[in-house]
Amino acid sequence: MLEIEAKARINRKKIKSRLVELGVKFLKREKQEDIYFNHPTRDFAKSDEALRIRRVGREFYLTYKGPKLDKLTKTREEHEVKISSFEEAKEILKKLKFREVATIRKKREYYALENFVIALDEVEGLGSFVEVEKKAGQYNPEEMTNFLKKLGIKERDFERRSYLEMLLAR
Amino acid sequence: MLEIEAKARINRKKIKSRLVELGVKFLKREKQEDIYFNHPTRDFAKSDEALRIRRVGREFYLTYKGPKLDKLTKTREEHEVKISSFEEAKEILKKLKFREVATIRKKREYYALENFVIALDEVEGLGSFVEVEKKAGQYNPEEMTNFLKKLGIKERDFERRSYLEMLLAR
Repeated sequence: MLEIEAKARINRKKIKSRLVELGVKFLKREKQEDIYFNHPTRDFAKSDEALRIRRVGREFYLTYKGPKLDKLTKTREEHEVKISSFEEAKEILKKLKFREVATIRKKREYYALENFVIALDEVEGLGSFVEVEKKAGQYNPEEMTNFLKKLGIKERDFERRSYLEMLLAR
Repeated sequence: MLEIEAKARINRKKIKSRLVELGVKFLKREKQEDIYFNHPTRDFAKSDEALRIRRVGREFYLTYKGPKLDKLTKTREEHEVKISSFEEAKEILKKLKFREVATIRKKREYYALENFVIALDEVEGLGSFVEVEKKAGQYNPEEMTNFLKKLGIKERDFERRSYLEMLLAR
C-alpha cells in the first residue's frame, strides 16, 4: 500500500477557519507517542526509511515506511500492523539490535474531506503542522497538489522532512 | 519473561494414555504455521536465537526467542506480540532485510496439568513430539525434570533442537 502524504507548516487558526468553510468532518482527537528505531546496519537517515512503534491510548502499532517517491510530497510505501503490546514490541526490536533514536509526542486532530484525511498536529518542540493523507494503490500527484491548494496551503510551506528528521536537525 | 520449555520425541498413543491417567485438562486443538526469519547480519543458527511469525486460524503473532539457557531444556528469553496481519508483518520483516528461512506446519493439542502446559505436536515432515512449557520470571530446572519424569518421558528422548533446526538438518 502507498501512503500518499503531504505535510506543511501552518497557522492553526487560519487553517481551521478554512477547514470549517469547506465543510470537513471532525473524526477524532488523540495523543500519539512514537518511538523511532534505526536499523542494525543500515542508516535509515540515509536510506530515507523509518521504523517506529506508536502508542495511541491503549492501542499500539508497528510501522515501516520506505523511501519517499517524489520531490514534493511525502508519498512512500508503508506497512503497518496493530500490536498487542508496546513494551514487548520494543523488547523484540532491541533484541534484534535496532537502536532507539528518538521519541516524538504530538496531539493530533483528524478531519475528513473528500477522499483525504487531514491531520492537524501540535508536535512537542516543533510546532503546528497539517498532514494530508490518502491511502491508495495508485498515486496521482496532481490530485494531491490540487487538494492542498484548496486548503490554502502554499508550496513554500511544504515540509518533506519527517518529524524525526526535524527533531534530529535541531 | 522466561519461557521454560522442554521437548521430547514421543509415541503419541503412549503419552496420551499416561496423560489421561494423570487427569490432564484438554485445552484446545489448532493448526499452526510458522515462518522463521534470519537476521540481516547475524546468523540466528549460530547465535541460537529465533524470530518467527505464527498464523493460528485468524490470529497472528510475532515472536523473538533468545539463546537457550541450560544444557537440558529449551528454556530461553521470549518476547511476543499479537499482530493484526500476517502478510503486513512479513512485508515489514522483508523490508528490514530479514530473510525467510523455512516454514513449519504442525497440528498441536494443548493440555494443562499443575502449572504446566503440555503440547502434543504432529509436525509436517518431522513426526510426533511433546513440548512442556511454563511461563515464569524464575527458572527452577528440577521442577521441570521432575514433571517430565512424571509424564514418563525419558532423558534420552529429549530434543533440544527447535523444529526449525531439525528441519534444516534433514
